[in-house]
Amino acid sequence: MSFSIAEAALKAKKAARQVANLTAKQKNQLLTDIAEALIANTDSILVANVKDLDAAKENNLDAAMLDRLALDPERIKSIADAVIEIAGQADPVGNIANIQRMPSGIQVGKMRIPLGVIAMIYESRPNVTIDAAALCIKAGNAVILRGGKEAIHSNLALAECIEIALAKQQLDPAAVVVVPDTDRAVMNELMTLDESIDLIIPRGGEGLIRFVCENSRIPVIQHYKGVCHLYVDSAADEVKALNILKNGKTQRTGVCNSLETLLVHQDVAATFLPKAAALLAEYNTVIHACENSIDYFSGAQVATEEDWHAEYLAMEIAVKVVADFELAIEHIEEYSSGHTEVIVSQDYSKTQAFIRRINSAVVMANASSRFSDGGQLGLGAEIGISTSKLHAYGPMGAESLTTEKFIVMGDGEVRD
Amino acid sequence: MSFSIAEAALKAKKAARQVANLTAKQKNQLLTDIAEALIANTDSILVANVKDLDAAKENNLDAAMLDRLALDPERIKSIADAVIEIAGQADPVGNIANIQRMPSGIQVGKMRIPLGVIAMIYESRPNVTIDAAALCIKAGNAVILRGGKEAIHSNLALAECIEIALAKQQLDPAAVVVVPDTDRAVMNELMTLDESIDLIIPRGGEGLIRFVCENSRIPVIQHYKGVCHLYVDSAADEVKALNILKNGKTQRTGVCNSLETLLVHQDVAATFLPKAAALLAEYNTVIHACENSIDYFSGAQVATEEDWHAEYLAMEIAVKVVADFELAIEHIEEYSSGHTEVIVSQDYSKTQAFIRRINSAVVMANASSRFSDGGQLGLGAEIGISTSKLHAYGPMGAESLTTEKFIVMGDGEVRD
Repeated sequence: MSFSIAEAALKAKKAARQVANLTAKQKNQLLTDIAEALIANTDSILVANVKDLDAAKENNLDAAMLDRLALDPERIKSIADAVIEIAGQADPVGNIANIQRMPSGIQVGKMRIPLGVIAMIYESRPNVTIDAAALCIKAGNAVILRGGKEAIHSNLALAECIEIALAKQQLDPAAVVVVPDTDRAVMNELMTLDESIDLIIPRGGEGLIRFVCENSRIPVIQHYKGVCHLYVDSAADEVKALNILKNGKTQRTGVCNSLETLLVHQDVAATFLPKAAALLAEYNTVIHACENSIDYFSGAQVATEEDWHAEYLAMEIAVKVVADFELAIEHIEEYSSGHTEVIVSQDYSKTQAFIRRINSAVVMANASSRFSDGGQLGLGAEIGISTSKLHAYGPMGAESLTTEKFIVMGDGEVRD
Repeated sequence: MSFSIAEAALKAKKAARQVANLTAKQKNQLLTDIAEALIANTDSILVANVKDLDAAKENNLDAAMLDRLALDPERIKSIADAVIEIAGQADPVGNIANIQRMPSGIQVGKMRIPLGVIAMIYESRPNVTIDAAALCIKAGNAVILRGGKEAIHSNLALAECIEIALAKQQLDPAAVVVVPDTDRAVMNELMTLDESIDLIIPRGGEGLIRFVCENSRIPVIQHYKGVCHLYVDSAADEVKALNILKNGKTQRTGVCNSLETLLVHQDVAATFLPKAAALLAEYNTVIHACENSIDYFSGAQVATEEDWHAEYLAMEIAVKVVADFELAIEHIEEYSSGHTEVIVSQDYSKTQAFIRRINSAVVMANASSRFSDGGQLGLGAEIGISTSKLHAYGPMGAESLTTEKFIVMGDGEVRD
């Protein structure tokens, strides 16, 4: 194949200027056209998807992988609906904040602008192709989408729908690039194109993300893992604590905002842990308990150092009794992945101190870690969750795909 | 020397938690103590500075370099005054923005927090040691300062003043590390410590910055160069245009916010360029002119492709006549370094379009590029100017050394 990623990125950079200058109305029309093209081309998308599924079965991919890969008319409809929802959100571009007059007489403010060209590197879910394209367009960016080889036929079929919509609006087709060549060498070259690409967002396993972080010359938004802690304080409302434990651990185990470690203040251990044990037993949860809590759980294993670091992504939890609030803070500071931590307490000072002192991306008092999600936090659609502290921290919506420039309005002023 | 940068960074990470939890009052007291220690230890700082100056003379460093390196009681006083000024600024940490109640009942907001550990890599100006330390402390961060070997004795003497102040407040001395070993190997190792260090800010020549960007695993704030453009529109007020040209090109040539390229609309070339030529001739400015403007300047050279990219940092300018507003925009988009661009025009629509469409870090209408500076834009002290679009874009004050976390206040809510 004669595809050149360097050339595609350079063209995307040029196209990005055009996307940046679209009005909100034009961008929303483009998004609506993409959604319509998805529905109109459902049949050809499904034909392409079958090719991917056949190849996946031949390569003995597991059932979970096949499920992530599979499309049907209903899933395509829901992908299209998500695009329409993004079209309906407020435009993050062009807002001007906080214009102030300086002593020199000039007026200074900040205007929100697109980043330019964003590259997504992701694995086998074809819906990411459309979600990411839609969010990048909403924020006025061009986008380069490099999905996994397992989904390549589906991704290219989805790309055609985007092309149709871009053509309908007479826009540069280079604004959305679906990389047709999934060879690793293309990805490696992509990571060196810091003159054309402004940001890389890898989505997938920890291995992929570490690889991109260590090898990219372009800034990377990273999200390694979510080791979310629930701390049940001595002043906790027990009912809230049990509900939040149940929701956080058992509602969905394979997601990054599920609970992995339960910390319990020693003053309430004797009353709370038997109830927690009964609840977790209902779900056949594997327990890794510290020596002060192990007797409350039947069949529990002794927690090791690895358990405090573990993101189980399964019906499995680490449990530790802590002597006081300070030791709970200390444990979280030591083992936090920077994702989401929760305190359950009715004590005003302790909830305030927890929120102030724990510097994970999302810190909660008396609410389920499962709320740590762009939609639930009011950002609209989410392009990822950042556990790097720079640029974006926590769930990222369209605004995280923009930056701010300074604007100065003078009337001939010069500097003394 | 048995200095280990990995160990120092790990200790700084621990100390960062302590700095993050200081109140504004405590941080300002620490800054005041640093300023006092600087004045009290003026003599020993000057003794150390003489060692650096002697070594610099032996190594035949040029006069400009010696001047940047040299301290005297007055300069030390002004460094101390800058620290007091930073103490007087508003605390960027702890502000909570925009708390909203979600449909689920949880209240969601964002709280500004420190980044953690910031590493500065810089060249020979010892004042950076104190400026950077003060701004990082103000923003609640620990800081690792790796200055050039030319200033090492001065930097270590300044570090002692910081140590005295930290000890007086009974704070962890690891919160501010002045790297005693200026060997390149130490810097190379520093750039791999992404588990301990959150951000690197290199300050110095383009070579240093590129080296850090290409080799760091830690996010880097970069600022390569400032190729600032002045576009004099057909609707320009000629007096404003001449004042802004004079201020931007001639007030200080060695700084990144000085003008490097003058673009003139063809309709006003015949009236404006003779006056511009007379003004620039007064300052013996070297002119690189396009073929349509060269006749207005005596002794001008023909501008080449390199001139449009050049950051002269000297009494030297590139001049180009453009046929219309669109071509001015196009030229700037093509050659901009992303720093600062200025339009001079009385036309409402064109000034608005220029401000909206040019996505450099600072975009101005009818004001001098020399205002592109943290102090002039109202940020207080400046730690650098970012021409990367991520995290920070443009002049960076203390707020650019922080990030925001999500905070959630619930009352027992769980997710449906």
